[in-house]
Amino acid sequence: MPRTSARLDALRARLAVPAQLDQAAALLTWDEATYLPAGGAEARGRQLANLARLSHEHTIDPGLDELVAELEGDVAAGAIVDAEAALVRETRRALDRARRVPADLVGAIAQQRVRGRGAWAAARTADDYAVFAPELRTMIALQRERAAALDGAVPAYDALLDEYERGATAAEVAALFGELRAELLDLWRGIQASPVRPDVAILHRRYPEAAQEAFVKETVAALGFDFERGRLDRTAHPFAMRVGAGDVRITTRYDARHLGAALFSSIHEAGHGMYEQNLPDAYADTPLGEPASLGFHESQSRLWENLVGRSGPYWEGAYPRLQAAFPGALDDVPVATFVAAINGVRPSLIRVEADEVTYHLHVMLRFGLERDLISGVLDVADLPAAWAEASRELLGVAPPDDRQGCLQDVHWSVGLFGYFPTYTLGTLLSVQLWEAMARDLGDLDDALRSGRFAPILAWLVEHVHRHGARFTPRELAVRATGGPLAAAPFLRYARAKYGALYRLG
Amino acid sequence: MPRTSARLDALRARLAVPAQLDQAAALLTWDEATYLPAGGAEARGRQLANLARLSHEHTIDPGLDELVAELEGDVAAGAIVDAEAALVRETRRALDRARRVPADLVGAIAQQRVRGRGAWAAARTADDYAVFAPELRTMIALQRERAAALDGAVPAYDALLDEYERGATAAEVAALFGELRAELLDLWRGIQASPVRPDVAILHRRYPEAAQEAFVKETVAALGFDFERGRLDRTAHPFAMRVGAGDVRITTRYDARHLGAALFSSIHEAGHGMYEQNLPDAYADTPLGEPASLGFHESQSRLWENLVGRSGPYWEGAYPRLQAAFPGALDDVPVATFVAAINGVRPSLIRVEADEVTYHLHVMLRFGLERDLISGVLDVADLPAAWAEASRELLGVAPPDDRQGCLQDVHWSVGLFGYFPTYTLGTLLSVQLWEAMARDLGDLDDALRSGRFAPILAWLVEHVHRHGARFTPRELAVRATGGPLAAAPFLRYARAKYGALYRLG
Repeated sequence: MPRTSARLDALRARLAVPAQLDQAAALLTWDEATYLPAGGAEARGRQLANLARLSHEHTIDPGLDELVAELEGDVAAGAIVDAEAALVRETRRALDRARRVPADLVGAIAQQRVRGRGAWAAARTADDYAVFAPELRTMIALQRERAAALDGAVPAYDALLDEYERGATAAEVAALFGELRAELLDLWRGIQASPVRPDVAILHRRYPEAAQEAFVKETVAALGFDFERGRLDRTAHPFAMRVGAGDVRITTRYDARHLGAALFSSIHEAGHGMYEQNLPDAYADTPLGEPASLGFHESQSRLWENLVGRSGPYWEGAYPRLQAAFPGALDDVPVATFVAAINGVRPSLIRVEADEVTYHLHVMLRFGLERDLISGVLDVADLPAAWAEASRELLGVAPPDDRQGCLQDVHWSVGLFGYFPTYTLGTLLSVQLWEAMARDLGDLDDALRSGRFAPILAWLVEHVHRHGARFTPRELAVRATGGPLAAAPFLRYARAKYGALYRLG
Repeated sequence: MPRTSARLDALRARLAVPAQLDQAAALLTWDEATYLPAGGAEARGRQLANLARLSHEHTIDPGLDELVAELEGDVAAGAIVDAEAALVRETRRALDRARRVPADLVGAIAQQRVRGRGAWAAARTADDYAVFAPELRTMIALQRERAAALDGAVPAYDALLDEYERGATAAEVAALFGELRAELLDLWRGIQASPVRPDVAILHRRYPEAAQEAFVKETVAALGFDFERGRLDRTAHPFAMRVGAGDVRITTRYDARHLGAALFSSIHEAGHGMYEQNLPDAYADTPLGEPASLGFHESQSRLWENLVGRSGPYWEGAYPRLQAAFPGALDDVPVATFVAAINGVRPSLIRVEADEVTYHLHVMLRFGLERDLISGVLDVADLPAAWAEASRELLGVAPPDDRQGCLQDVHWSVGLFGYFPTYTLGTLLSVQLWEAMARDLGDLDDALRSGRFAPILAWLVEHVHRHGARFTPRELAVRATGGPLAAAPFLRYARAKYGALYRLG
């Protein structure tokens, strides 16, 4: 037993080295997106490459591998159980994944990310897909290689998807998406036929940036984002990032002519941030102190953004503060008009501008195309035409150019294949968690109305955050909600919410 | 020849690893002093300790040692010359210093720094030297050990001093200080007898922080601090820090009731910052890309702060902008009155509040005491009494308590012995450089008056910055000024400046 305990201590000491290198890299990355002077960009690239290389070296260190093998023996012998056993299991998983992909492939992908991103940005500026196509082709080939290295026994796409949503398969995702698709299209047709037209122009009055910043900070602090253990800064593309225990940073951007931009992106990022702030401190610097999956991460951001931040009851409570924060701007706007505006459903060609209903059609479009790109069913040269066709089918309209089509997202240019589905999986999960929470806590509308967010956060901490990566996403979904991930709760929610807003029959 | 070139490439690749770890540590340290949320402090300590340990490991790597030994053969054979030879020499010096101090002593000192700093802060708050004394005693013992490890053949204090001002000895410092002391005391007596009394109250009118910040940024940018390759942020204790090539950060603090605080500390830090911004990029990530010494560093900050920023001609040009930046605040104050106020000489017990004349008496006091503490001539228990005596002798008055006496500086609590003298050495050097510059560029008053700072910065880049650590401080002083460090130029300057301001005979 003392030997087992000493081995666990040794494990933690070894894991801390790459973990803290990764934390340093996180701060360097945050800084790059917030405060880094332009002249420092080149050196920053070298610093990050160095940290990544050292972290990888310390992860694939044979000494660590031997130690984990010994600990697996302890687990098999029953000398290590519960969370510590999960720590051994998760460490093995992280080690294996780090070892399976050869260093030169990792390097080639890292280089191709830079080239791909550059070509994508240039192609987008020029609206010239041909500039991007060769780099995309190279990246797809590299990702197929990576998939084969990670798990040669499953379809390449599944191996990639597993990186972001452990245990998920394209077949399952396709089944869930199929269930969603018909219902969402039906709901959307109803909304389009409705005479209700939310007055979205009220969101584009003048909302000074400084007042937005103050209101946003007050808002996310009230929801439970802890500024003693976090920050909110400005950036070009909002994100959330944990630098280390007690240090979680979220970012946003302000537009004086767009009230919703900073407000809802900040609540979204605060949802990610609260998850990161409440991961188990006892397992900081270990793989067990990580989030369960990207889907779970997105469930937290979507829950706070949509189920709280875009709900009627929430604004019944918060609206007077909003009006006071922008004197004169919303005096003539009743709360119901405001709530209708922030939930306006409008067809958009751009995913990141899409509403709660049509958003998932954008995700489905990408899922179908990226699966075919990885399998080879779709050739890179045919992507724009395939995009247009899928867009017509799902969104009813084809993009007038590739900028508003297949060049709109950065993901594929940096090798993120299998990432898009987690946006929708997380959204489904957010409603499923909300329903489970309501079963435990009773009707949540009153809590939203009166600003009592602490029980909501406490429930999420208890059922999701504090477990870190102890359970697989599938196990955690069952433990937290009573069942595996399903589309029904989200569809119930969407039908009820948008049925009421658009007075559907 | 190709083998030599390959070895130099290998050297650079190896040196880049610890250098970039140190750069990451620099960003983490900057962040700790500017934006880190309180909750992240503990994790930050772990991250920094990890980075320091890894950097040390990569520095004492036997493979690097062997490579340097081979390169030393190339230098001896004449196959490597000039700057590359200096790179080999400087790398050897850095390696040897890193290897000489045993890892457990490095660790013990790092731990004692944390304990010492904590005890010092507590002692200062309570004005209770007894709280600090035992930790100071431990730190002195550790520093003696360190000195013996670094160079057992010289007095311990010299070994420590060499860390900050390579090649300097206590005997030389004492000789320079002896020369300064009588003259400065004489000058000060003259000033005290003068009927001139600068109106320092004008500096404590209302100067809003935001206006100060804008003015300070404009000021340091005009002097030559490059905001494309740097930043200015807020902190509690101002400092300058290079994170990496093209990324140099300076910090300050604002006090709406003290115009000088942010303004002169920012010019001071910008002086450090411009040095760091103009170090040789070609030797970034190597020991040759570092500053020549702390004395040289301080020469740059003092030159810009005092010889430029506190000069009459500078404000003849800049004063209207200052008046415009704070509408109404200085309308009744002629520029001569302002210049007299920012150069007011007043006895102070606190070093960091001292003027250009009495500052060096504070440094001398510390130099004498720290030398005796390290040699053992002075016992830790007797420090307060010895401080009082030295203070009476040098400053004419003893501190009423230890807070204003031997507890005022953080340095000794974190093991910085041999550091204080560099403040004065740098000041002497700043005037010596200024005289040499005037010989090359002609009368500099016109340049200050008309805001032509580019030739001044260009001269400093040419004669100091661009050389990095290629030459020893002694060599560099001779190359840049024609002779070794001396007290005469500073004394000439001080006599002329304060003779005129205080109308001395």
